[in-house]
Amino acid sequence: MTTGRIQGKVRIVGAGLIGTSIGLALTKLGTDVVLEDSSPGNVRLASDYGAGVPAGSNDQPALIVVCVPPDVTARVVSAELAAFPNAIVTDVASVKSSILDEIAATGADLTRYVGSHPMAGREKGGASSGRADIFIGRPWVIAENPQTSAAAIKAVEELALDLQSTPVRMSPLEHDHAVALVSHVPQLVSSLLASRLIGASGVELAGQGLRDTVRIAASDPKLWVQILGANSTEVVSILDDYSKDLNQVIDALRDVSKAGSLATIDQTIANGNRGVEQIPGKHGSRNSQFSAYVVMIDDRPGELARLLTEIGEIGINVEDLKLEHSPGAPIGLVELQVLPNVGEKLMNDLQVRGWRFA
Amino acid sequence: MTTGRIQGKVRIVGAGLIGTSIGLALTKLGTDVVLEDSSPGNVRLASDYGAGVPAGSNDQPALIVVCVPPDVTARVVSAELAAFPNAIVTDVASVKSSILDEIAATGADLTRYVGSHPMAGREKGGASSGRADIFIGRPWVIAENPQTSAAAIKAVEELALDLQSTPVRMSPLEHDHAVALVSHVPQLVSSLLASRLIGASGVELAGQGLRDTVRIAASDPKLWVQILGANSTEVVSILDDYSKDLNQVIDALRDVSKAGSLATIDQTIANGNRGVEQIPGKHGSRNSQFSAYVVMIDDRPGELARLLTEIGEIGINVEDLKLEHSPGAPIGLVELQVLPNVGEKLMNDLQVRGWRFA
Repeated sequence: MTTGRIQGKVRIVGAGLIGTSIGLALTKLGTDVVLEDSSPGNVRLASDYGAGVPAGSNDQPALIVVCVPPDVTARVVSAELAAFPNAIVTDVASVKSSILDEIAATGADLTRYVGSHPMAGREKGGASSGRADIFIGRPWVIAENPQTSAAAIKAVEELALDLQSTPVRMSPLEHDHAVALVSHVPQLVSSLLASRLIGASGVELAGQGLRDTVRIAASDPKLWVQILGANSTEVVSILDDYSKDLNQVIDALRDVSKAGSLATIDQTIANGNRGVEQIPGKHGSRNSQFSAYVVMIDDRPGELARLLTEIGEIGINVEDLKLEHSPGAPIGLVELQVLPNVGEKLMNDLQVRGWRFA
Repeated sequence: MTTGRIQGKVRIVGAGLIGTSIGLALTKLGTDVVLEDSSPGNVRLASDYGAGVPAGSNDQPALIVVCVPPDVTARVVSAELAAFPNAIVTDVASVKSSILDEIAATGADLTRYVGSHPMAGREKGGASSGRADIFIGRPWVIAENPQTSAAAIKAVEELALDLQSTPVRMSPLEHDHAVALVSHVPQLVSSLLASRLIGASGVELAGQGLRDTVRIAASDPKLWVQILGANSTEVVSILDDYSKDLNQVIDALRDVSKAGSLATIDQTIANGNRGVEQIPGKHGSRNSQFSAYVVMIDDRPGELARLLTEIGEIGINVEDLKLEHSPGAPIGLVELQVLPNVGEKLMNDLQVRGWRFA
């Protein structure tokens, strides 16, 4: 008996990070999960972790979730639609439009197919990195095609809700544009910036600003070649605009005494300000709703806990927290974000208790 | 009587964030500090905060620290060198080469001048944001010119050490190249990326990757126009390379089926990997020396403190910590970085205590 919304058996094809994580979460709810993978070792591993049982030849799945790499997703979805004529099939690939086109080209039954994309992941891949919790609170994009049946959409919505993520309906093209904007273009911009550091001198002056900007540049090239290749049209259209603005600011910097140069530089930074304000913060609010304070702590076990215990005693909820690097110093800098109306109290009360602010 | 290294009076010109912070730190050590500013109100405010006393007409400062905006730094430094023929003069502007050229053009005594740049700051400016602690553990670049006397270098080194920062000696050009690389170019790259979000749809899918990449795009345009304008040569030279690589990857994405396109994309991401590895982490170590784990906590006061208290009980030191946004969910994701050899113990012991990992 399942306590989840999905009724019937769920077949997961591809027992990597995402497939295993979905299996773990559904199994916890009591849903019947069967696992398939081109590698029998992956199936055994995911099964050992508790993500489901190996698929059998007589399975009658109600829902099939294809969790294979982007470049083989369309082929596997089409094969599953053909092999299980009563099942609804979805996939979790991070591009949607080109995969839909490929599936359509095979003549597959598109009424039973609905693409989806859980906006979740971890830096490490593989079944052994799977966790039931990675989808909680994350958006789960449901990208139906014009032929998708209402039953198919409902099934994937139930899957998203069972995994405690938030269903977001978009067309495949809307999805691909959105992820180009919030994920694919940032990846390239960050990688290109990090590349400047190779063989460069002066990197020892790096502060938190550079570190944040290039953090995602540490991502896996193999996966990103597939993602970027499959969403190239949307990515190029945004990069073209980026490149145009970049060339404009380069021209301005090449001759700062020219009329209009300083205005161009000013506008570039000011537009960045406006762009950042578009990003929803925690609880759907804007980042700028919080006030930030930086507290200094000694770099030894228990100090951060002591700070947060005292903040709890003061009765203030920390909305966001970041422990900053402090190169070469036996000290940590803790950035606390709190609601503006409690900021002064936080600072005063902590100072009375002997905490120092940076 | 001072407990600091600097002997004699220190005159601070410009009672904004940096000037006030230096004054506060030196006053704490018992060093005599006098304050000057084009605005008498700023002097009174900084003085009220305890950063020093208003400058008098008979002051005989041993060291003068010019803490005014970049575009007036050269003029003020030259005036101070002329007005105080026995004093050593430094400044704290975030560009060094063009300012040195401007000072040299006035015929000022360069033996007594040494440029410097403390790599510290806060998001808010002004005397009221001043803190004695902002320099602790940060690099303090000392950018001597060919005529700078050994005594002048020693005086600024003592200043840096009195403020508990780490002196780093570089030529003005080396400095300007380094800050272009680790600060000025990242600023523009981030601002240009954030600009893409203006009026765009799909921003609600934004995750931590985008947030990190555009965080510094919230910086002050007025200050950045000055910084970028004064260091344009170094910034342009790096942006030209960036633009070349960007155009190459755009070409590859425009036709991914062309021979070599996928290799170009792969190389872009792989070079980003290599670049990130150049950045020194906490305690001078590499970021990759730490293992990351993400723990889920309920979003209510005291939960983070409870987690960290328990980690303290387990006896593990947290090297880095970040509280992630989790849009729409009453839950927080805490990323912990620890030394790899204690990672398994951290996870096992916390799981035994009922904590969930994402």
